[in-house]
Amino acid sequence: MVRKIFMMLLLFGLPFSTPWKEEDNEASKKQKNVIFMVMDGTNADVITLARHYKGEPLALDSILTGGVQTYSYQSAITDSAAAASAMATGHKTLKDYIGMVPYQDTDGKIRGRPVATIMEAAKAKGLATGIVATSPVQHATPAAFSSHTMSRDNMHEIGQQQAHQNIDILLGGGKKYAFVNENRDIRMVQTKSELQKAKENELYGFFAEEDMAYDLDRPTLNPEQPSLVDMTKKALGALSNHPKGFFLFIEGSKVDYAAHKNDPVGMISEVLAFDAAVKEALAFAKKHRNTLLIAVADHGNSGLTMGNEQTDETYAETPAEKFVAPLKKASLTVTGAVSQLKHDRSNLEEVLHLYGLDNLSQSNIKKIKESKDIEKELVTLMAERAHLGFTTRGHSGEDVFLYAYGPKKPTGLINNTDLPAKVVGHLELGPLSEFTKKSFIPAQQYYENKGYETRSERKANSGDVFIARKGTTVVEYPANQNKRKINGREEKLPGIVVFNGHTFWIPK
Amino acid sequence: MVRKIFMMLLLFGLPFSTPWKEEDNEASKKQKNVIFMVMDGTNADVITLARHYKGEPLALDSILTGGVQTYSYQSAITDSAAAASAMATGHKTLKDYIGMVPYQDTDGKIRGRPVATIMEAAKAKGLATGIVATSPVQHATPAAFSSHTMSRDNMHEIGQQQAHQNIDILLGGGKKYAFVNENRDIRMVQTKSELQKAKENELYGFFAEEDMAYDLDRPTLNPEQPSLVDMTKKALGALSNHPKGFFLFIEGSKVDYAAHKNDPVGMISEVLAFDAAVKEALAFAKKHRNTLLIAVADHGNSGLTMGNEQTDETYAETPAEKFVAPLKKASLTVTGAVSQLKHDRSNLEEVLHLYGLDNLSQSNIKKIKESKDIEKELVTLMAERAHLGFTTRGHSGEDVFLYAYGPKKPTGLINNTDLPAKVVGHLELGPLSEFTKKSFIPAQQYYENKGYETRSERKANSGDVFIARKGTTVVEYPANQNKRKINGREEKLPGIVVFNGHTFWIPK
Repeated sequence: MVRKIFMMLLLFGLPFSTPWKEEDNEASKKQKNVIFMVMDGTNADVITLARHYKGEPLALDSILTGGVQTYSYQSAITDSAAAASAMATGHKTLKDYIGMVPYQDTDGKIRGRPVATIMEAAKAKGLATGIVATSPVQHATPAAFSSHTMSRDNMHEIGQQQAHQNIDILLGGGKKYAFVNENRDIRMVQTKSELQKAKENELYGFFAEEDMAYDLDRPTLNPEQPSLVDMTKKALGALSNHPKGFFLFIEGSKVDYAAHKNDPVGMISEVLAFDAAVKEALAFAKKHRNTLLIAVADHGNSGLTMGNEQTDETYAETPAEKFVAPLKKASLTVTGAVSQLKHDRSNLEEVLHLYGLDNLSQSNIKKIKESKDIEKELVTLMAERAHLGFTTRGHSGEDVFLYAYGPKKPTGLINNTDLPAKVVGHLELGPLSEFTKKSFIPAQQYYENKGYETRSERKANSGDVFIARKGTTVVEYPANQNKRKINGREEKLPGIVVFNGHTFWIPK
Repeated sequence: MVRKIFMMLLLFGLPFSTPWKEEDNEASKKQKNVIFMVMDGTNADVITLARHYKGEPLALDSILTGGVQTYSYQSAITDSAAAASAMATGHKTLKDYIGMVPYQDTDGKIRGRPVATIMEAAKAKGLATGIVATSPVQHATPAAFSSHTMSRDNMHEIGQQQAHQNIDILLGGGKKYAFVNENRDIRMVQTKSELQKAKENELYGFFAEEDMAYDLDRPTLNPEQPSLVDMTKKALGALSNHPKGFFLFIEGSKVDYAAHKNDPVGMISEVLAFDAAVKEALAFAKKHRNTLLIAVADHGNSGLTMGNEQTDETYAETPAEKFVAPLKKASLTVTGAVSQLKHDRSNLEEVLHLYGLDNLSQSNIKKIKESKDIEKELVTLMAERAHLGFTTRGHSGEDVFLYAYGPKKPTGLINNTDLPAKVVGHLELGPLSEFTKKSFIPAQQYYENKGYETRSERKANSGDVFIARKGTTVVEYPANQNKRKINGREEKLPGIVVFNGHTFWIPK
């Protein structure tokens, strides 16, 4: 069904926005760019470990400037939704909330109200915008930069909102939740080669139904997918043509996925893939001097440490090789390796080999074969061999490192909510609070003040709709889109209509 | 015996060096100061947790500038000796080595050779120097700034060397290993009140036989001891009078002690005590603008995380209070509490209460009573209650945060070996490598080139001695001291004599 819509779009897409095509040398001097990069769920320890694994400095190493406090409105340990909402809007918020902050709704209950994101403010000022992620692009972190909803789980709704945000570049996973805005003529791609051939400055690519492959697994298991650095290069190339500059969000989404599994192989794979994207972004920022680059973890995850109970007494004589050699034996992440396991588990030894676990005793192999959670058995063995400790399969609450480069870069210890002001300052977007007031007006109050009767309705085709009526005039605002109908005639809006299940917000 | 020496010194001390007494306003402008602060064994997570515990920002928070790589010459995870040697001399080295780097000795074996420390170079340039620590001042970290020996365990030797380094201020634990240089007239103190009354600019205080009390335990168990901030204030007050400025080393030594025990109460106690000292140092640096302040952890320890297996599913809804409230119930660290346990363990419940563990079932109490390792039982219970994870009772290998303030402060990601150059640059000490060449000349080679016969000897009174003879001239260099005898006549040397068990080094 979604694929059908894609095909139809390729045939019948109607242009609405005016594309910008040519680089204007004079204009390029007026460009101001922000590249905002997040490595999801990455603690300091895995960065150090990844450096040892690589055997040379990371791109990140050259731009460390401070640290970030990550706690949420309600918890010392944030989830990705609250963390990304903080970094996108400047507000601490509740878990699961996407681009929303808690408030007392008109019925007295606590719900979310939308607050503007730096990406929306950049678009409103006429800059190009882009999102690149290896998760579904509708996943919590990219979602919070580009949508407003009560729960990160509302991925279809997030996809719909993203389709109405006039985003220029949208590359990642999440085909399953992708929504097509039939009013825009956007080039759609689905493979690495299509991506590389595309010349358009407005370009959407969904390369997996859900999340994309781990970087380590991709060449073997999903060679048709682009890497994070492929997507980054393409996005920077396309956006750099925009006369006013751009805001580009890039997430290395899957450090977090691997960390939740306590898979150090996957974690390193994703840190290094993210770092390769940072290298590209940094080269761009050095060439285009009006570019502010920010790279940051949204929170820690897994409590990985180099050193565990086995090294209580021997830590001071354990060369880096003892940690990385076992990890380097793995040719796939635990997810990638176990995906190759046959239903009858007859090829278990092959799978163990793919994950770098050799020289296991037959009794050990038998135990794994009978296990309910094969992945857990494998990562536990790997952690032992690589002398790594883990404290949790959830997030952790420590301050994380802050990386930045370019004009007005953040330095020192900051809060995650301090980051938007840095972007606003560099791009001269004006206060986000003012932009929120313009972008999200309580619809009922607005129309009732003008003498309208208002109600909301769930329609079969268009979902939740806010309806205001006065005499013969009927105004309809479908949720999650950037349009309204006045007596059936459709009009485009400067922003999206947000509904929290009780209250509607509409743009001015 | 040691106490006797102290008393004798107080009566018979002979002045050798010229004390500096009055602040000279003109001269003070020429002062250049460095305050080099180390919190031993402190990962990012415990700093975040300490901030939540305190409920307000730390002094450290205002001066975060980057991160530090801590690996040693031989291991991805450093011990304190190699870490401190790196920060004091600029060289990665082997575990246990104090102010020495590995080299092939004249017999072909790998041993240490001494390399100059920033503290020695500062003293040689005429600056005042000081050491403050809550461990024995002869413990690995302060030792590596002020002595040269093959093993951190040689604490008597370290104490002897420190006594011959013309250190102006030496405050901390380690009375047991303290050595008195009878050629110096130094005010000695042993209690907080003596410390506070002392007016001298050359002042030694040993306030405990071994390490000093944890900050949390001190008011109850060792109220006669000064706090780290008391010692810091005194040291800064005394050193600030020196016309050329000073190099002051300050260690919050016991985060590491508590981390090795996985005692979060002790870890927080020591982070906050260290932070209070940072606050003093920072205020000093803001007032005396030629002061470079560096504060850094030498390595992580324990893998503490906010978040553990209990929070795998609930991390995003766990307010800071859930972590700190159980910790705040403790009125003593685990060491302090268990020190109050009677031999028959009849007061166990009282001890549990001191450590903040209430509402334990009788079966639980019985289990603890029968345990071989009471401290381990207690910290395990505390970690559960406070939702904290630990991965090890040893050190960990991650990059740590770097804090700095003042002229030429280090920023970004650096190596621990990069720190001395910052100090050298600010104090204009000249290259340490040149200073090493002058300070540590291979004695045998030097004298044999001059036609002497050489040998070494272990003497009952003075320990290892290097002896060179030519005709009727006999030159003797006792190890670990700053003097030689020529035909029995004693001469002071500009630095100390170092012996690695095979080779002697002497100053020029």
